[in-house]
Amino acid sequence: MYLFGCTLRSDKREFKVDPDDEDTEQQLSLKAVCLGAEAEDKFHMVEVEGLGYDAKRAKVPIAVLKPSVLPSMNLGGFEITPPVTFRLVSGSGPVHISGQHFVSVKDSEDEE
Amino acid sequence: MYLFGCTLRSDKREFKVDPDDEDTEQQLSLKAVCLGAEAEDKFHMVEVEGLGYDAKRAKVPIAVLKPSVLPSMNLGGFEITPPVTFRLVSGSGPVHISGQHFVSVKDSEDEE
Amino acid sequence: MYLFGCTLRSDKREFKVDPDDEDTEQQLSLKAVCLGAEAEDKFHMVEVEGLGYDAKRAKVPIAVLKPSVLPSMNLGGFEITPPVTFRLVSGSGPVHISGQHFVSVKDSEDEE
Amino acid sequence: MYLFGCTLRSDKREFKVDPDDEDTEQQLSLKAVCLGAEAEDKFHMVEVEGLGYDAKRAKVPIAVLKPSVLPSMNLGGFEITPPVTFRLVSGSGPVHISGQHFVSVKDSEDEE
Amino acid sequence: MYLFGCTLRSDKREFKVDPDDEDTEQQLSLKAVCLGAEAEDKFHMVEVEGLGYDAKRAKVPIAVLKPSVLPSMNLGGFEITPPVTFRLVSGSGPVHISGQHFVSVKDSEDEE
Repeated sequence: MYLFGCTLRSDKREFKVDPDDEDTEQQLSLKAVCLGAEAEDKFHMVEVEGLGYDAKRAKVPIAVLKPSVLPSMNLGGFEITPPVTFRLVSGSGPVHISGQHFVSVKDSEDEE
Repeated sequence: MYLFGCTLRSDKREFKVDPDDEDTEQQLSLKAVCLGAEAEDKFHMVEVEGLGYDAKRAKVPIAVLKPSVLPSMNLGGFEITPPVTFRLVSGSGPVHISGQHFVSVKDSEDEE
Repeated sequence: MYLFGCTLRSDKREFKVDPDDEDTEQQLSLKAVCLGAEAEDKFHMVEVEGLGYDAKRAKVPIAVLKPSVLPSMNLGGFEITPPVTFRLVSGSGPVHISGQHFVSVKDSEDEE
Repeated sequence: MYLFGCTLRSDKREFKVDPDDEDTEQQLSLKAVCLGAEAEDKFHMVEVEGLGYDAKRAKVPIAVLKPSVLPSMNLGGFEITPPVTFRLVSGSGPVHISGQHFVSVKDSEDEE
Repeated sequence: MYLFGCTLRSDKREFKVDPDDEDTEQQLSLKAVCLGAEAEDKFHMVEVEGLGYDAKRAKVPIAVLKPSVLPSMNLGGFEITPPVTFRLVSGSGPVHISGQHFVSVKDSEDEE
């Protein structure tokens, strides 16, 4: 288990977790999202893009923060299987997403 | 496990998750609800309609949000078995509901 | 697993979950509490009454909400074994409590 | 599993859970903390004192509430093994702490 | 399982959990973070530094608090494996971090 974190801001609105290593199984468990202390007093919306049930890529807003109203939010363990993209769709950030990153090697379990 | 998300707004106040595929068992685990950055500064109430213990359909408000007070809320893994209907009963949205969608094939487990 | 919900207001300040069916084991997992959009801007306190360790009935406040400050709150899976009484001790509501209701039949497990 | 609750206020700033019965194993899972509707509009800090890793008693603030800012807070299942002391270190309360209290009899498990 | 807590402030901005005892496996489960009642009304940001997946040390902001907006926050069980450093990167505190500390002895499990 590893510590996961990424930062979204106006000049880097996306962050992708895309395991190129096919021998690992990966899982993210999102725990918190918070604004940088220097963020503008506007609404900041964070969206997650991942695999939906209908086999389409689902784009799902998961948090809206504003410094003077709600600068941090617990996500309680929102589990997502990569490949996943985090995207700042409103506001200029910085917005920090944190959580746990689980990685296990496939072969050691499935192979003979 | 899939990423789940739906959006409720004044011109689409309901969203149903109703598996027509009888060969699957489905479960939703709701993780967060948040307002769109453009939502009016009014109270927005989200209701869930699902199966209650008394075999009646239960209509249960699960969150009230307002941009200037509480624009996002963690739901902490509120598990609901479809068929379920999400409904915006106050406010004009948009309100975004997010979570995890578990789908398993019945036959592979139960059949001989 | 069923969807659980109840509403407390000035003319119905209590809601009891009291299984009269002795053949079932029941459990509530409280997930959220929220105010109605029409609630007065006062503090609303919700109390739970259930079995405490000292075999007395424990009366325990679990949430205080106010529309302009905190209209909704996640309860994160507060598990309570019925019989239980929910009570609105301050404010005139409506206050909505939601969660999951687990019911299992005793006999099918314990009987020979 | 039992319902746990205690109230701290200016004339009773401490509450101890100290099992004198050595035949039981006890665990608390804290779920929520909230202010009384009549609490003054000041910061109220709640501290927990329990066993730290270094074998010393650890005094750990777990929540700061204020009626006009944050009257209630989810604790998400903060597990503590008694003996434990809850203490109101700022503010005059009342502050209500709630959760689940697990009690199991040692002998029935460990004895032959 | 032990009670974990640490306090960050302007004259002690870092707190490290670094097990020098190689015979133990340790885990932290962060539950809450709160400001001291005397903290200045500025944004306080808490960062965690631990092991990221890419084998680099990851520096991840997990909470931003401000007395007049959000004085406390639930972290919902954010699990981190030491060695870990908690750091106050904005504000002068005090900020209190609390949770559970799990310690198990390696030898008793792995040795023959």
